[in-house]
Amino acid sequence: MSEPGSATLAPGAVIGMLGGGQLARMMALAAFRLGYRVALYDPDRNPPTGDLCPRHFCAAYDDLTALGAFADHCSVVTYEFENIPVATARHLARLVPVRPGPLALERSQDRLAEKSFLQSSGARTAPFFSVETEEELRDALLETGGEGIVKTRRLGYDGKGQVRINDIDSMAQALELIASQPCILEGFVHFDREISVIAARSATGDFRAYDPAENVHEGGILSTSTLPAKIDPALAEQAKSIARGILEALDYCGVMGVEFFVSGRELYVNEIAPRVHNSGHWTEAACLVSQFEQHIRAICGLPLGDPGRHSDCRMENLIGHDVDRAAEFLESGDAMVHLYGKRQVREGRKMGHVTTLFPRRQGR
Amino acid sequence: MSEPGSATLAPGAVIGMLGGGQLARMMALAAFRLGYRVALYDPDRNPPTGDLCPRHFCAAYDDLTALGAFADHCSVVTYEFENIPVATARHLARLVPVRPGPLALERSQDRLAEKSFLQSSGARTAPFFSVETEEELRDALLETGGEGIVKTRRLGYDGKGQVRINDIDSMAQALELIASQPCILEGFVHFDREISVIAARSATGDFRAYDPAENVHEGGILSTSTLPAKIDPALAEQAKSIARGILEALDYCGVMGVEFFVSGRELYVNEIAPRVHNSGHWTEAACLVSQFEQHIRAICGLPLGDPGRHSDCRMENLIGHDVDRAAEFLESGDAMVHLYGKRQVREGRKMGHVTTLFPRRQGR
Repeated sequence: MSEPGSATLAPGAVIGMLGGGQLARMMALAAFRLGYRVALYDPDRNPPTGDLCPRHFCAAYDDLTALGAFADHCSVVTYEFENIPVATARHLARLVPVRPGPLALERSQDRLAEKSFLQSSGARTAPFFSVETEEELRDALLETGGEGIVKTRRLGYDGKGQVRINDIDSMAQALELIASQPCILEGFVHFDREISVIAARSATGDFRAYDPAENVHEGGILSTSTLPAKIDPALAEQAKSIARGILEALDYCGVMGVEFFVSGRELYVNEIAPRVHNSGHWTEAACLVSQFEQHIRAICGLPLGDPGRHSDCRMENLIGHDVDRAAEFLESGDAMVHLYGKRQVREGRKMGHVTTLFPRRQGR
Repeated sequence: MSEPGSATLAPGAVIGMLGGGQLARMMALAAFRLGYRVALYDPDRNPPTGDLCPRHFCAAYDDLTALGAFADHCSVVTYEFENIPVATARHLARLVPVRPGPLALERSQDRLAEKSFLQSSGARTAPFFSVETEEELRDALLETGGEGIVKTRRLGYDGKGQVRINDIDSMAQALELIASQPCILEGFVHFDREISVIAARSATGDFRAYDPAENVHEGGILSTSTLPAKIDPALAEQAKSIARGILEALDYCGVMGVEFFVSGRELYVNEIAPRVHNSGHWTEAACLVSQFEQHIRAICGLPLGDPGRHSDCRMENLIGHDVDRAAEFLESGDAMVHLYGKRQVREGRKMGHVTTLFPRRQGR
């Protein structure tokens, strides 16, 4: 393999991660298995990834000196969440390859920009409207049949920063949200199921996608992902093809999660996440190449791996005190348990996940 | 889960590893996935595991101050190779649980003690004789039909410290070896194949074993491990049962590799290794619970996992410049690639391994 800076990073090269939560932790584990080193950049002093990174740049995302030192130390930089400031990514990108590039961050940080981009890339989305005033909200509601979800344009995830409009109380809450920051109104898509595609694109434009997972959310947070999704194979192919269009439109390098609503034979893109994705955690148990390894391969210039799976499966998140159930899964013969090393259990906090394979195939 | 010190270690607890080679590195990856932290003790300044351990105690194995600080820092201590000084393990065991215990180290460090122990535990071995003088060697050779292998009692691995006696030159080399340190003469076992069992025993005496792998060595170094071994299922069960006897006789806690010669319907134990074992690397690709996770579970007081596999497979070591073939396996749809992050390629140095599953079962 070749030297840092050239097309393929050699073992021993340092991958920089912006953000040190469980997604970075899992990417780091995959990086180590391919012989790479990892450096972490996170303003938090004790993030989950800190447990396994000897080199932690603990500084603010606008600390130019720390960013410069971090860039010097790394052969490539990636990120684990989409709310890294775009300015941070742009600054780093002048010093070291940043993959995926800042453009993907920019598109996915603002729901209005994201949905406009998605439509321009040929994907169908729920109807949406920019709403910054009560008047704009009322006008938009006329278009969506009087119902919909008001979402902040920025910094929302896991159902935070959202108000579902269905009565007078919720209207008041929605107006409060709009008064605090720019929002969009999204019309409802009356969907049969939710699926997601974990897609990858290499630095040379090669594309691979795992089969769609069928996802169930509870309280806005992913609860389970099941493979295969109960959809027609042609629809699964169509979902991969839409994902491909999105990654190509962004000249993307790395793994992306693309969430869809399935309504009859129609697919609506709900959201894109320019990173490894919770609904792709099953790949570590059911595939030879997990989404985490796929991402590391892409950003390090290695060939993408086969996204085929050896087993069907269901991934279940362990949220808050769900983690107390880990022992039960550890006893099971069918489950892979993954805990994130978080010391404090809090309601709604993602503590780990479990993937159960089915059916078992070989002797015990 | 409960606090460090009690039966089950809680996530966030620190596992100490003596030795920082690729085996410790792979144990650490498994530990992280179960939410644990890892501290490393290795006199080498840049061992492979150092890449992923923020806390590295870099000191000699007889540095009592450093050992004390290490014990203070850890909730349990384990080791990645059998040549850790027994005195080091005994000293640590007075301060912190050491698993497997020092007894297993003691038994496996000296080939004479090891083979005597194996026979006492009910396992069959090749005939062996303590040889410290030319006279003892000549007497022993009379017993073994004039042929055999002279092996140093201590510090041999991967075929080092061994002389195969088959002519006058080799006799001279053997005498040189005997003059340098205590040895044994081992009679040949004319075997059909070599197999190994990766066995695990929990702190509470629960026992699990993976199906035997069939191993091929080249130049004394493991080349491939294939599952299943081409042996009768009853013989496979017998191998597991012998392994169980060995682990129980040592009141063992953790994973052990037990190597056998298969001769007709007879099993001869060749060697035991009180640690995770190269011939068990396939488990990370073909099982939900790898040997590395199994070891971590055992030493942390978690329930042992199911050793069943979802796929048959072959593991191949990447030794020296074999690592240049990694790219080819990365392109393959059937292989899991594991590189150890070693920067210098040297002849005979284990750089990584690859596990190929067969046959593929599910869509790509």
